[in-house]
Amino acid sequence: MPAPESARAVKVTPISGFPELLPAERLAELHVLDVIREVFELHGFTPLETRAVEPVERLLGKGGDADKEIYGVTRLAARSDERGGTDGGLGLHFDLTVPFARYVLEHAGRLHFPFRRYQVQRVWRGERPQEGRYREFTQADIDVVDVGELPPHLEAEMPLVVAEAFRRLPVGEFRILVNNRKVPEGFYLGLGLTDVQGTLRVVDKLDKIGAEKVRDLLLEGGATAEQAEQVLALASIRTADTSFVERVRALGVSHPTLDEGLAALAAVVRAGEEQAPGTLVADLAIARGLDYYTGTVYETQLVGAEDWGSVSSGGRYDSLASDGRTTYPGVGISIGVTRLVQLLLARRGLTATRSTPAAVLVAVVDEESRRRSDTVAAALRARGVPCEVAPAAARFGKQIRYADRRGIPYVWFPGAAEDGGDQVKDIRSGAQTDADATTWVCPPADLRPAVVVTAP
Amino acid sequence: MPAPESARAVKVTPISGFPELLPAERLAELHVLDVIREVFELHGFTPLETRAVEPVERLLGKGGDADKEIYGVTRLAARSDERGGTDGGLGLHFDLTVPFARYVLEHAGRLHFPFRRYQVQRVWRGERPQEGRYREFTQADIDVVDVGELPPHLEAEMPLVVAEAFRRLPVGEFRILVNNRKVPEGFYLGLGLTDVQGTLRVVDKLDKIGAEKVRDLLLEGGATAEQAEQVLALASIRTADTSFVERVRALGVSHPTLDEGLAALAAVVRAGEEQAPGTLVADLAIARGLDYYTGTVYETQLVGAEDWGSVSSGGRYDSLASDGRTTYPGVGISIGVTRLVQLLLARRGLTATRSTPAAVLVAVVDEESRRRSDTVAAALRARGVPCEVAPAAARFGKQIRYADRRGIPYVWFPGAAEDGGDQVKDIRSGAQTDADATTWVCPPADLRPAVVVTAP
Repeated sequence: MPAPESARAVKVTPISGFPELLPAERLAELHVLDVIREVFELHGFTPLETRAVEPVERLLGKGGDADKEIYGVTRLAARSDERGGTDGGLGLHFDLTVPFARYVLEHAGRLHFPFRRYQVQRVWRGERPQEGRYREFTQADIDVVDVGELPPHLEAEMPLVVAEAFRRLPVGEFRILVNNRKVPEGFYLGLGLTDVQGTLRVVDKLDKIGAEKVRDLLLEGGATAEQAEQVLALASIRTADTSFVERVRALGVSHPTLDEGLAALAAVVRAGEEQAPGTLVADLAIARGLDYYTGTVYETQLVGAEDWGSVSSGGRYDSLASDGRTTYPGVGISIGVTRLVQLLLARRGLTATRSTPAAVLVAVVDEESRRRSDTVAAALRARGVPCEVAPAAARFGKQIRYADRRGIPYVWFPGAAEDGGDQVKDIRSGAQTDADATTWVCPPADLRPAVVVTAP
Repeated sequence: MPAPESARAVKVTPISGFPELLPAERLAELHVLDVIREVFELHGFTPLETRAVEPVERLLGKGGDADKEIYGVTRLAARSDERGGTDGGLGLHFDLTVPFARYVLEHAGRLHFPFRRYQVQRVWRGERPQEGRYREFTQADIDVVDVGELPPHLEAEMPLVVAEAFRRLPVGEFRILVNNRKVPEGFYLGLGLTDVQGTLRVVDKLDKIGAEKVRDLLLEGGATAEQAEQVLALASIRTADTSFVERVRALGVSHPTLDEGLAALAAVVRAGEEQAPGTLVADLAIARGLDYYTGTVYETQLVGAEDWGSVSSGGRYDSLASDGRTTYPGVGISIGVTRLVQLLLARRGLTATRSTPAAVLVAVVDEESRRRSDTVAAALRARGVPCEVAPAAARFGKQIRYADRRGIPYVWFPGAAEDGGDQVKDIRSGAQTDADATTWVCPPADLRPAVVVTAP
């Protein structure tokens, strides 16, 4: 712990895009992270972390616009001729997928495939900060990677794991939108539109510019009026069950890739209907990163906060990683924890019922008897009750105020009972009762700070 | 999740000083982190995180040699004239104390003092990597900061919290060495040595260069032979109880600052004797960062691994932070989680009993009945049992091998019972019994991967 010092020299200001939380907010975020971790582990995903830096060459060219977003990392003390040497050429990772792909290649010989891992870490992107977009943020990813072939049922499992986590969180109603890259690809090819990527890029703008402008762009791109109409008709299909298949069929386009895509997407939606009714919605306009994904893709919206952007996204790759000899297909989904938490803070009034883990403040009668209060605290902790001992033997009113300001529900008074034993006071109700630290049971609802939304 | 791709272009190699763990190792580390968090929360420390970057000016000049160790962070896409602008001048934090001091100043109006926080995050230092020293590592810090005055009993509490965490971890025997800056300072002044810092710096080399060379350096620095002898005599005092006070007194030096230091150190050691016998050792040679610390200082050794360096250090500052008007004194201690875990991995054979959180593999009879296996898994998860469903309906021998390779103790066979119900097999013992996923109780010892040391 090196020297902290006066702050006079440097202004103390937030840095745009690097959000920080106050204690009660962080307790709420930690709850979100705990729930996510629990659900990921219940599904047998193994925790992993990777280093925060990767060689810049590994980061470049992955993720489209990401080149512009990479933060390079250089030792300040490195002489300019050293830069580009040992430390030069390192950058902060901008997602958890690129490092995971590298990790899989590096450690393949010591992993068992199919390999299921989760990873919760910060990532950094030098983008322009705005609502829902940050320069430093936390992601929580699950991926399954295999050697050669990847079982298709995993494409249904991924969003259902996220749905299970979301159902345990105060996020309200949500929808996981799913599509399969092969559906638009096969459809366009069946229509005679061979520029699949170009068409997808135009359709991807639907939300922003509307159907009219998309039609214009398609026509400019060389589509006939009928082709453009069909492309828009496909993108308008959105069903919570497998009826999207009939609706696509009704458009009269056929292509083997379309058949494959419809079958795969129907399997995912059917699994959703069975295992988490109302959660998965086939949305044939979803074009998420379709240049990398090769199968199912996911985006997640909280109902009423669609403008905030997707809070959980992912998809399937035929090649998560490859060393030239072996190809590792994968499927994964990522929860944008910071985006989700900031949304819940800003729009739902997410907070915790107290600003400390402590459930009990052990009062101190006078400094000479502090040892007795320490003993009470040790007994409570030994039985799993988080507590702290009052910092000063102030008058009890002040000690109670100390607890109240932090939302600590109980204050313990050593020696307050008539028989010389202790008492504990619930400062919310004012009820004060005799209590023994070696047997007292803290009501389970008070043991940890509860997480609440004040504007659900 | 942007594009993962082929690795052909960039070599896949470890980066020196940026350690990564394999799954079972990470599970062990996560156990260490969980225990630390639990103990910190039991003591009423509030979780916080700060952004990973600070303005370079804030980092510079804090922490002695740290200037050389700072990693600067710059957007690769920033034009050279932008550098030093919005993003220029940012660096990765090299500890959690400097950011915490800034956080306290920034949010003082919304915090309650005394403020107890814990913070577990990665930090980065561009040092030469070696055993026990890394360029990216995780620290777990607790600090208490107050306004104006800080109660002295907190100086005893900090190391006792760490001791409680260590007692719950497979670290073996350990010692927390404590000193108080005022002891050597008052002693040197009482001896007539006014260059306190210079003398401390020389004494700090005792471990490396030995008493003879320290004596030479002291004489060169202007000390008399008798003064040098006395300085060495003080540094040789190490007691597990308060008897160090008498031993210092026996040296015949007196000074008001020495009296203060001895009283304060005795109070800390006495609290240790009462609350954690055998844990705290007064070691008057400890000179840790004595130019910043103003009271008690701590260093922690695992017995038998003293050469690995301190795995938990800290101390008290009169001024953790100051905005020019208000001064915030603080006391804190930091666990070097990466150093500790790497030590346990390298020397104690730390590992986890399996490489996945899953306690059960639910077998799949054939792909047509996968839904039944999914239902079993959902029932197990609903009751808190981590499990996964076999990725493929291979023959059972292969599915059992899948579990065995990962250390998953149980394999569940849907429909294997004579009455059409399920069976579960403990693949360690081979015992296979009828079971119902809605009532089966996983033995608590098998619910989570256990953490073991194979070379204690």
